[in-house]
Parts: sequence; C-alpha cells; structure tokens
Amino acid sequence: MARPRVYLAGPDVFLRDPGAFAQRKKALCERYGFEGVFPLDGDLKPQGPDLRELGLAISRANEGLIRGCQLVIAQMTPFRGPSADVGTAYEMGFARACGLPVFAYSNVAEDFTTRTTAFVGTTHKRPDGHIEDGDQMQLEAFNLVDNLMLYGAIVASGGTLATSTSTPAERYTKLEAFEQCVAAAAKVFATGLP
Amino acid sequence: MARPRVYLAGPDVFLRDPGAFAQRKKALCERYGFEGVFPLDGDLKPQGPDLRELGLAISRANEGLIRGCQLVIAQMTPFRGPSADVGTAYEMGFARACGLPVFAYSNVAEDFTTRTTAFVGTTHKRPDGHIEDGDQMQLEAFNLVDNLMLYGAIVASGGTLATSTSTPAERYTKLEAFEQCVAAAAKVFATGLP
Repeated sequence: MARPRVYLAGPDVFLRDPGAFAQRKKALCERYGFEGVFPLDGDLKPQGPDLRELGLAISRANEGLIRGCQLVIAQMTPFRGPSADVGTAYEMGFARACGLPVFAYSNVAEDFTTRTTAFVGTTHKRPDGHIEDGDQMQLEAFNLVDNLMLYGAIVASGGTLATSTSTPAERYTKLEAFEQCVAAAAKVFATGLP
Repeated sequence: MARPRVYLAGPDVFLRDPGAFAQRKKALCERYGFEGVFPLDGDLKPQGPDLRELGLAISRANEGLIRGCQLVIAQMTPFRGPSADVGTAYEMGFARACGLPVFAYSNVAEDFTTRTTAFVGTTHKRPDGHIEDGDQMQLEAFNLVDNLMLYGAIVASGGTLATSTSTPAERYTKLEAFEQCVAAAAKVFATGLP
C-alpha cells in the first residue's frame, strides 16, 4: 500500500541548505511510515528570467503538491515577528479546506500573547479590558500558540500541536517537536512505527 | 438574484470598533452589488469562560462564513512584521482551496523585499547571490507584494491586487485600495455598478 504523503510546510525553504534539511525530515517521515513531500519538490518547468513568473510557478507547484498529500505537518515557529511565516499559514488554510489533517509544531514554547506583547513593546488597556498595541490594534488573548485560525485548523482537522524550546541557532532546524508530530500522525494513520 | 457574498478577511477585527469599520466596508460592497460578510458575523453560540474554546468557536464560525461566500477581499497591509496578518493569510489559503477568487489590497505600497530588508536590519549576501537575515534565513526577492503563496493565490484565482500608500493613523482603515478591489470584483461578477 502506498505510504501516506505528508506536505512539509514551513519556513524551512529559506534555510541555507533546504535540500539537506528536507532529507532529515523525509528520513523521519519514512521511519514512521510516511512519504515526506517538501515545497521544493514541485516539478518546475524551465523558467525564464522573470522573477514574478518564477514566484507564480512555485506557488502553483506547491498548491499541486498539497493537493497530492494526505496530511500536512507545518512548522509554526515564529518567523520575523510574533507569528508563523505567512506562506505556512496560507498552506495550512489551503490544506484544511482540502480536508487534510493539519499537524503543526513550533520551536518556541511561549504563548502567542506573551510573544506579541514583547514584540509590540508598548501596550494599552482598553476600557473593555482588551489589550491593544501602539497602532490601536488588539492583541489576541486566547491562550493559544498563534492566531486562532491556525490553532483552530489543527484541532478541527484532527491534527496535533507539538512545541519545544530552542536556542537561536537551532530555532528553525530542531526536529524534536516535528518528530512528535510525525509520531502522532502515525497513530492517526496507523502507519508502521519504528 | 442573490448578491454574491464577499468574505472581508483582514486584521480589521483587531480595530477599536470593528463593527463600525465592518459597516463602512459593507456599504461599499452594497454599492457595487455585493453582500459583505465580516469575520465577526458568525453565529457564535453562547460561550463559557474558557478562552481556548471561544477561540476555537470563532475559528469554526469563520471557516463556515468563508464556505458560504463567493469571493474574498483580504486586507494584506503588513501587520506586526513585514507580512500580512497570519489569520488573513490562512483565510486566503482556505478560500483559494474552496475555489473562491481571492482579491486583496494593502495600504503599504513598498514591495516585500524592501519591507523585509528594513525589518530584519542586518542582511548578508550568500555565495549564490541570495540575501539572508541574521538568522541565516533567506529573503524572498520575487518583486511581489508579500510571500509568493499569497500573491500566487490572487493571480491563479482570477482576483486582483490593489495597493495604496497611507499614513500610520489610517494604515488599517483607509478604503481606497479596498474599493478598487470591490470595483474590480464587480467587473468579474458583473454585478451592479454605482
């Protein structure tokens, strides 16, 4: 029987050597009976020099890859701000609407409100008790890992969330919480365990 | 004939008076023959004091609202970092996978690479010519408005992007680019023009 295919969403594509990192993730997927599919695995036809066209081709290829997978494991580690990478958030929404279980991990264990408060610096309490930033925009305070749409996708789709702490050097490459997601997914899909 | 329903995605929900802002957007939608649907329009059953459960209920309600719409107009104005709000990015992906045209606007006209460079501060050129930040994570350089998945959704779905400049005070509330999206959508859907 074909192994379930896992789309490996995350800012991993921005690493210095994404191909090597993809191999580490794929090896873990294989141990648990899955086939890992990395964003760069798409079949990109030869592209001209137009950067916009190249960006669009990658976008189309990634959407096709997600449609060909049975689940997603997304790296939600905060990326250039208090929240996950927006490309990853987009792909979680895309996968969720396709009916795929969304598993996710973050290598930062602090909750979203704490991270956002630290990021925005100045906060102000509104008369109704809600907290807002210097732009008068409210901070979410639901005790979740990130924006409620992202967490909601994990819960509603039957996925799980794993978090771990990390040093700055291993922030985007630590795989402990990722492996917890793969193990949890293996139970859901009843694939081979190591 | 029922007017096409537009899901109004964006960080608008974090404004001091999101209900009043929703009314302004809905009035513009109506002028162009659409019915505007705001994230807070969901039918939330009475909730207990559990914040996590409330967050999950809002998530479920918003996904239901998107499924009941025929298009999305997303506010992609950068939010707490160089990119759009992640909840908005999630909803764009969700809508795209549901087959909805994704229209989007931003009240910041600078391109993504310029914004990200300013945000991360220190950048470094890799041997292959790509630019990375202090975390050794690459910066996208596709001359797009934001992450390529977000822009790709707009193009592939037949939507349009509109941008404008804004002062800090009107960053999240200026409606010029929003109205351009509504007008462009009216042409696609051939609804009544003003």
